Amino acid sequence: MLPIALDAMGGDFAPAEIVAGARRAVDELGLSVTLVGVPELIGDTMGLDVVACSEVIAMDDDPAASVRTKKDSSLVRAAELVRDGHASAMVSAGNTGATMASALLRMGRLPGVIRPCIAIPLPNPGKHPTVFVDAGANAECTPEMLVQFATMGATFASAHYGVSDPSVGLLTIGEESSKGTPLVKETHERLTASGLRFAGNVEGRDLIPSPVDVVVTDGFTGNVALKTLEGALKFVFSTVLSVFATNDETRAAGEVLIPHLLPLVGSLTPENQGGAMLLGLNGICVISHGSSNATAVMNALRVAAEMDSAHVVQRLRTAIRPGQSE
Amino acid sequence: MLPIALDAMGGDFAPAEIVAGARRAVDELGLSVTLVGVPELIGDTMGLDVVACSEVIAMDDDPAASVRTKKDSSLVRAAELVRDGHASAMVSAGNTGATMASALLRMGRLPGVIRPCIAIPLPNPGKHPTVFVDAGANAECTPEMLVQFATMGATFASAHYGVSDPSVGLLTIGEESSKGTPLVKETHERLTASGLRFAGNVEGRDLIPSPVDVVVTDGFTGNVALKTLEGALKFVFSTVLSVFATNDETRAAGEVLIPHLLPLVGSLTPENQGGAMLLGLNGICVISHGSSNATAVMNALRVAAEMDSAHVVQRLRTAIRPGQSE
Repeated sequence: MLPIALDAMGGDFAPAEIVAGARRAVDELGLSVTLVGVPELIGDTMGLDVVACSEVIAMDDDPAASVRTKKDSSLVRAAELVRDGHASAMVSAGNTGATMASALLRMGRLPGVIRPCIAIPLPNPGKHPTVFVDAGANAECTPEMLVQFATMGATFASAHYGVSDPSVGLLTIGEESSKGTPLVKETHERLTASGLRFAGNVEGRDLIPSPVDVVVTDGFTGNVALKTLEGALKFVFSTVLSVFATNDETRAAGEVLIPHLLPLVGSLTPENQGGAMLLGLNGICVISHGSSNATAVMNALRVAAEMDSAHVVQRLRTAIRPGQSE
Repeated sequence: MLPIALDAMGGDFAPAEIVAGARRAVDELGLSVTLVGVPELIGDTMGLDVVACSEVIAMDDDPAASVRTKKDSSLVRAAELVRDGHASAMVSAGNTGATMASALLRMGRLPGVIRPCIAIPLPNPGKHPTVFVDAGANAECTPEMLVQFATMGATFASAHYGVSDPSVGLLTIGEESSKGTPLVKETHERLTASGLRFAGNVEGRDLIPSPVDVVVTDGFTGNVALKTLEGALKFVFSTVLSVFATNDETRAAGEVLIPHLLPLVGSLTPENQGGAMLLGLNGICVISHGSSNATAVMNALRVAAEMDSAHVVQRLRTAIRPGQSE
């Protein structure tokens, strides 16, 4: 089994939480993980293999410039391990833009893919998550790109969650096909003719819970919506907790409810789902939240391993045939 | 005191809840309200004045076409009452697009206003709401329009909430000025030079609670974000309530907490804040949620009356001088 290449240097709590998450993935999930990092900075490797490098791309480094200049950074080296067949996937909780750039530049796109997109699993209590694409890779999109994102999202839902013939919704500002921007209207027409199971327009209120298996939008709208969702969930939960602190009676009631609420908070927190997946590359790349703790890192490694077992890249290669969307 | 013209025919629960809300606004808030509607459809007017008309624009009528053809509809007549100085404001819980179209066509824009925008008060516990513009009036925008929306939002925050020199944030996908679409980047430059207190970029997670007094975005992104927020809040509250139903112990704990949670739910529900306000018109127009009950209608009437007392239209007229943004 090829190991997963884990960027030990990326993330707000790197390297300690990253290494701890890797150790747990090995012990609890039986995965094979190789740390990629600067040995003197990693410290205790907890017995894990390390591929040594000499540079680190910081959270606030310019993505394109840092990938170009820091050729011996943990991010670039992790992507090269995948490219060269020494790792099954790369995972990082570091600089998102630089992770995307190194994965794109080192692994390359699958044939026919215009641009890779970020897929995020949106929690959908009681059923599999909804695949949300593009959650932020491409601020500017064409209708061709959105149809490809929809195809890649549907392929992922099918491969990863076993959904047969996934339904696809187009995120816009009204259910009627006349609503939205020229991009949305043109995409609506193309999705109707795409052969995908297009369920029509969906609105922001249809993200959680969602009536469709895949929601497609451009990366600007997608990123705003995702962060709005994350912010709202976090805010409401913290506000509910503050209500528990009102007086002794509410505190006692809160103690009864908290054990029931915590799993819910966990299941609704998108970052707990394992992170963002880049679709459309010739390899697997999972981007974990910058604030990832060991559990989040372990979940990201699990998702990467599942994408490998589900042959997501091979299925995407088949789904996106060069020239099909022209 | 001029009455507020209230569309008695618009809304999922019209006319009964609309009339009941008007009655409460008169009794509890001391407002003056005139119903506009088809007498034989209104039924019991609860002693309120009625301006009779013969037509109704349905929730799913085409906005532009219906305003053109249904000249004696309650929506068009309500807008005419404001235009002709017989009403201080119009309020409707009906067809949003048709409400905007009738207000725009009958009242007209203030001099220099490129396009009116929809302002929504986003709940901000512990302080005044954040003014969110454009929440859906204009799917396609130019940088000039966004700067005007920001100016109108800031003028509203100042007039309505008494905020001196309100701070303005630009909604995008990263805090760095280099992030976003060409529209966002160009708007960023113009806001920096606008004379407004521009606080820079904000992200979706900064909508609730918000670090700024005004958040500006295009009407497509704004509508998606608003509905994402509404959907997430509704979903979390209903999920928390479902946790209370787990067993007898959680039900008892829930009974202790519900009286403390309900005011919170109310304060966080954007539709309870009084509805959407159209800014940039030569008159006041408040659009209440389609699902408005009597309380929501009363709140929308209260907001319209407050906009009148705060001289919002006159202040906007001064803030937007023709040619200033060219």
